[in-house]
Amino acid sequence: MTTVSNEETRTDRLVKWAVDLKYSDIPDHVVQRTKDFFLDTLGCAIAGRNHPAVSAMVRFAAQMGPSSGKSELIDSSHNLTTSPPFASLINAAASHVVEQDDLHNRSIMHPATVIFPAALAVAQDVGANGQEFITACVVGYEVGCRVGEYLGKSHYEKFHSTATGGVIGVAAAVSHLLKLDASQTLSAVGTAGTQAAGLWQFLMDATHSKQVHTAKACFDGIFAAYSARDGLLGPRDILEGPRAMGAALVPGKASPESIDRNLGLEYAVVRSSFKWHASCRHTHPSVDALLNLMSKSGIGFDDIDSIRVPTYQAAINVLSLSGEGDTVHQSKFSMGFVLAIAAKKGQAMITDFTEEDLKDPSLRVFQKRVKMEFDAELDAHFPEKWQGTVIVTCKSGKSYRESVEFAKGDPELPLTRSEIEAKTRALASYGGIADMGTVDSLIKRAWKLEHESDVRGFVF
Amino acid sequence: MTTVSNEETRTDRLVKWAVDLKYSDIPDHVVQRTKDFFLDTLGCAIAGRNHPAVSAMVRFAAQMGPSSGKSELIDSSHNLTTSPPFASLINAAASHVVEQDDLHNRSIMHPATVIFPAALAVAQDVGANGQEFITACVVGYEVGCRVGEYLGKSHYEKFHSTATGGVIGVAAAVSHLLKLDASQTLSAVGTAGTQAAGLWQFLMDATHSKQVHTAKACFDGIFAAYSARDGLLGPRDILEGPRAMGAALVPGKASPESIDRNLGLEYAVVRSSFKWHASCRHTHPSVDALLNLMSKSGIGFDDIDSIRVPTYQAAINVLSLSGEGDTVHQSKFSMGFVLAIAAKKGQAMITDFTEEDLKDPSLRVFQKRVKMEFDAELDAHFPEKWQGTVIVTCKSGKSYRESVEFAKGDPELPLTRSEIEAKTRALASYGGIADMGTVDSLIKRAWKLEHESDVRGFVF
Repeated sequence: MTTVSNEETRTDRLVKWAVDLKYSDIPDHVVQRTKDFFLDTLGCAIAGRNHPAVSAMVRFAAQMGPSSGKSELIDSSHNLTTSPPFASLINAAASHVVEQDDLHNRSIMHPATVIFPAALAVAQDVGANGQEFITACVVGYEVGCRVGEYLGKSHYEKFHSTATGGVIGVAAAVSHLLKLDASQTLSAVGTAGTQAAGLWQFLMDATHSKQVHTAKACFDGIFAAYSARDGLLGPRDILEGPRAMGAALVPGKASPESIDRNLGLEYAVVRSSFKWHASCRHTHPSVDALLNLMSKSGIGFDDIDSIRVPTYQAAINVLSLSGEGDTVHQSKFSMGFVLAIAAKKGQAMITDFTEEDLKDPSLRVFQKRVKMEFDAELDAHFPEKWQGTVIVTCKSGKSYRESVEFAKGDPELPLTRSEIEAKTRALASYGGIADMGTVDSLIKRAWKLEHESDVRGFVF
Repeated sequence: MTTVSNEETRTDRLVKWAVDLKYSDIPDHVVQRTKDFFLDTLGCAIAGRNHPAVSAMVRFAAQMGPSSGKSELIDSSHNLTTSPPFASLINAAASHVVEQDDLHNRSIMHPATVIFPAALAVAQDVGANGQEFITACVVGYEVGCRVGEYLGKSHYEKFHSTATGGVIGVAAAVSHLLKLDASQTLSAVGTAGTQAAGLWQFLMDATHSKQVHTAKACFDGIFAAYSARDGLLGPRDILEGPRAMGAALVPGKASPESIDRNLGLEYAVVRSSFKWHASCRHTHPSVDALLNLMSKSGIGFDDIDSIRVPTYQAAINVLSLSGEGDTVHQSKFSMGFVLAIAAKKGQAMITDFTEEDLKDPSLRVFQKRVKMEFDAELDAHFPEKWQGTVIVTCKSGKSYRESVEFAKGDPELPLTRSEIEAKTRALASYGGIADMGTVDSLIKRAWKLEHESDVRGFVF
């Protein structure tokens, strides 16, 4: 009747891989992409710094945390340094505000906004160098995204996988920085998993849980790893056990093979996508298809009568929750509004979504004439591929169809370094940073991160 | 296509009741029972203070939290005062170690171990008096237990309801102490609910998540309430919304009427049970039945050949997870071992479960001859009634059957004040407190809690 088997589980194998990973094992293109996403995250954090959720967390940290510490806020204007969980709480909330952080397609997760803030705060706490930081981030991406893939798209119907997979990735990344052994890391992962939470309900009323989820994934994963170091034991098979995440959070529908397939042969970091447009990632393929179509056909905003958008179920689910988009944030979750912005402005960058736009009747009329429809073929490929199709009917009666297999920023179409730099400057500018000298020096430092002796001072 | 309805939800009604409750509204017997459970919790916390999970959390608080604060650890030996989330983290972990804290039968929750530590830490932070503290605790019990009942027994199959319902109760109790209005409290409750987590997986390998769950329910609920005060918006219908707790954590099986039925007419505090025995609460009715049977029939430990224990499914689920009980903690989750202890020692108090007992062959042989079996009738009444039946076959061939409708400590059979005092002294003694003068003065202060001008100094 013994219940603890000594057989190696997939969770064991994943943890063993994470513990053993060394910087020298990581292919150069993975290192380079990790730096791309790190810089991208810094930009996102500064762009989102004034959101009320971030302000509430700054206040929580100031009131409940230490009066100073080794971990920094990416937004230095608060003059607050603190302990790792509080610093990452704030940085993770801030970097998930403007919907410009990355997306790991297959897991439907945004790994950057949880992995980098947590690893940065802890790397600062323990004095890790650039290579150690990069290694921990690669571990965090890999473990987090594999858990997200394991939980899969039916989990994503109710749960914000960025949080539920993310907390495990954070625990693994932080464990690596703390140099925990496999047994301790398994405990950290287990304790992280039993805290996994994050529901989509907030989309119904435009409330602030999206930032709570990324923030708390950091806090809770850091708690899990430091506590594991200090003797707190976590359940050994928090993924596949009979009362574990798979069984409880996505009964009967998890994908166990995702946990340990091709470990060390594939890297989640290079399967993650940049966000180029400032809207919900589910709108991006359709935006690209529409912009391509308009460019090819020469039609303009005013020529368009209506648009049909065949898409996969997850897009319909998420994009149906925000109504017409009463706030700027909600408007980025309306397929109709996002396509209206893109069609009218020729792009959908962060500066293209404003309070004034919410009141623009031409956008609102256009928005109403966009209809999503379920497409079984696109759905069958999701989330392996995030494809987009638009079928545009013009006022002239003419009709056009355009599809994209990949969106700009997808692993198959990544941003170039100069595009990432431009995006970073735009994000900083949106966040109210006037001094582009600071931004340029952060960019320079990020590009040579593997040669940095520490990761302090990545602040605006 | 608007998604936010202005119709009053059950969650709205529950929150409105919580915000409006005044001390003068609370019937005296509810006040008295609240004090009973408060004292009981203090004893539990001191008894559990040396558990490795508690030590890891003390270290986490010392390292990540402030160097001092207004909130106290019930175990004063650490010389640490801190901020409310860290103090409650530690006190909640400690008070859930020895399995002697209360049980709210219908929700299958242990409310005391989350509500009191959170409310105590916040009451100390804001300088609340005894009446304000009691009122907040009554709110926390009511809201938390109603959410636990809403989620129900199928939720409990995978989730530790003490955590998932508890975090909401904490948010409500803390909101009351912070004097938040209904809208802010709704946000606090929403933010708490989107963090709700806690899986039973740890029972499989005797790891420490049970304490993580109570500790984090406090931390997270306090985070939710303070953040709500500071402008963080939470989803408005975190219980019944389409992507909310009911839909995600117990799809199709929640009990909405539990949320707001008889609000202000029934009180969860007086529907909660004391734990008299030191084992998993699911074993208590069977222990009582066995002790009654042995007392009536005059048979002793050595006379018993085997025992059949008809019981409800939730007991079988939880008690099947800990194997034979390789640790003292696990042994309290083995029906066979617990009945063996009770039969041999005539009781199953905290001092009756020792490392030596784990190696006692007579107990191990007895343990193996106890078999639980599913009983449809007992199951139909659970969790309204936690009934117990044992069918004992003696070595002589004679067989006996005994049932109890309620266990000692149930609302129908509550402990007396002198029993509570005796239990508190036993818990303190188990926790290594030699000075019974301190214990006696805490007991005295607890009995006149409603006349206290503050709730500081409830420490051993």
